[in-house]
Amino acid sequence: MKKLINKPEDVVREALAGMAAVHADLINVDIEQQIIVRRDAPIKNKVGVISGGGSGHEPMHGGYVGYGMLDAACPGAVFTSPVPDQMLAATRAVNGGAGVLHIVKNYTGDVMNFEMAAELAAAEDIEVVSVVTNDDVAVQDSLYTAGRRGVGVTVLLEKIVGALAETGAPLAQVAELARQVNNQGRSMGMALTSCTVPAAGKPTFELGEDEMEIGIGIHGEPGRRRAKLATAAEITETLTNPIVDDLRLKAGEQVLAMVNGMGGTPLIELYIVFNELERILKGKSISITRSLVGNYITSLEMAGCSITLVRLNDEFVKYWDAPVHTPALRWGR
Amino acid sequence: MKKLINKPEDVVREALAGMAAVHADLINVDIEQQIIVRRDAPIKNKVGVISGGGSGHEPMHGGYVGYGMLDAACPGAVFTSPVPDQMLAATRAVNGGAGVLHIVKNYTGDVMNFEMAAELAAAEDIEVVSVVTNDDVAVQDSLYTAGRRGVGVTVLLEKIVGALAETGAPLAQVAELARQVNNQGRSMGMALTSCTVPAAGKPTFELGEDEMEIGIGIHGEPGRRRAKLATAAEITETLTNPIVDDLRLKAGEQVLAMVNGMGGTPLIELYIVFNELERILKGKSISITRSLVGNYITSLEMAGCSITLVRLNDEFVKYWDAPVHTPALRWGR
Repeated sequence: MKKLINKPEDVVREALAGMAAVHADLINVDIEQQIIVRRDAPIKNKVGVISGGGSGHEPMHGGYVGYGMLDAACPGAVFTSPVPDQMLAATRAVNGGAGVLHIVKNYTGDVMNFEMAAELAAAEDIEVVSVVTNDDVAVQDSLYTAGRRGVGVTVLLEKIVGALAETGAPLAQVAELARQVNNQGRSMGMALTSCTVPAAGKPTFELGEDEMEIGIGIHGEPGRRRAKLATAAEITETLTNPIVDDLRLKAGEQVLAMVNGMGGTPLIELYIVFNELERILKGKSISITRSLVGNYITSLEMAGCSITLVRLNDEFVKYWDAPVHTPALRWGR
Repeated sequence: MKKLINKPEDVVREALAGMAAVHADLINVDIEQQIIVRRDAPIKNKVGVISGGGSGHEPMHGGYVGYGMLDAACPGAVFTSPVPDQMLAATRAVNGGAGVLHIVKNYTGDVMNFEMAAELAAAEDIEVVSVVTNDDVAVQDSLYTAGRRGVGVTVLLEKIVGALAETGAPLAQVAELARQVNNQGRSMGMALTSCTVPAAGKPTFELGEDEMEIGIGIHGEPGRRRAKLATAAEITETLTNPIVDDLRLKAGEQVLAMVNGMGGTPLIELYIVFNELERILKGKSISITRSLVGNYITSLEMAGCSITLVRLNDEFVKYWDAPVHTPALRWGR
């Protein structure tokens, strides 16, 4: 196992310590409890927005804590859901009296634990609404999930919804916008290589030298099918068409497009995929008017990429363009 | 060769096309000539700042073109110097009448070609000053270089010097600041894995399952030594101590620290390395007061990291903190 780590059991704790040191201007990190909280939380009368999930997907979610996006994130062990106590602590920490939105990726463990945390928070009279993301068109059910998995749209949703929350909008409105973004977004991913969970010490799955996995999940869950290696043009087509079909995107529509690296893929390749994506969508008269290319929701050192499209409307654009200042996304301030 | 590409010979052209599409608000890309120019160039009476080098190190340098950093970048083929004609075209495109600074990493091909471009520009009455970066403490001479290689400090220098150029400072002053940053900066890198140049189709070098290369260059040039895998703590110590010694950093001094991923290393590991770096420097009473953690000067999909330290003074801090708006670095606007 070739990793820049010390002991596997210390990976999350030490990475959080590093993150706390690098981004001390933006976040407070409770390393023992594993929660990352915006420095100025709780903000009075502002809806608190939190998310969480297994570690190993950095910069998600901790990298999105800050002005205009998340108020807190709770990372679990690598590829393992955080526990309800963490989520409850994060909920308390960001409750400014206007309630708290839980953004939950649709993985069985995450959903169950966030539900429990919401109940515990309710018992303390903190109003919580949960929105579950389920944008992965690759498979209906999978190893860790009933229904579609929540993947790339989560990042884009956190940005858009975080901007609305920053305006002081009420919880019901913030939650409704989250549901709308999820409804208008779809994703699909693929892997050229597997990844190795530090505690396991060996690759999650095996892929031949001339093979790739289409429709992979972000924990290395099996996808739609294993296939022979193909060109960037073919791979991009394979990922894009199911998204366009499922979203029923039509000529003349505008999208926010994310080409996301899985952690081990260099930026030069992601730009090539974006070039193909633009060509394909142009052929369908669909315009990419906002975009994001880079490593945003990763699977450790896995090589591969995912594509996420969100159908845009004026409201989404307005909140996408609004200022954000987090460790991983920053513009407008 | 597992890559998200089409034909190896189209990699740079297609990646540039993708980059142009993603960042059309910031840059103009001449895909045939392979130059990336700031949209508002040339800026009258502002020193033009350009850099260039082989592709495969993204986001360097094209990702640093924009307000407060570079005015243009010329990417060569993968791991291959751009040609003088490209550099001359970039120099012309950014010449606003106040002259042009060439920032050149110390690799034999880059130095030779930038020298030729400067002569051609001089023949057109464009004043050019070149500053060569040579911050890599790992080896004195290497496969592609006489003297020390120019690596991570180049990124930090481009940010600091670009901010000064933005104020309208004259060429001599901009060049002098570039020399000062280079003098105060040192780097060292290591690799856990090799990388594969698309046109070659096989790894640049071989590393055993339990081996790493210490002091690697950004093209996979051999480093100081091959060693058995070690912990993040040991690796960070191995990279940091030669930098601190060479810079003669003393207790009480402040540094800008970059922990850079080589392209295939996940962010969670880079934060662990940063945590170790902070611990080591704290032990020497050296403070990290500015920092950057992520993939900034890469070697395709190589796994590994490099550390760069720049001794800070008030001037460096002022220009580091100044607004920047490029594809890869953005703050303050």
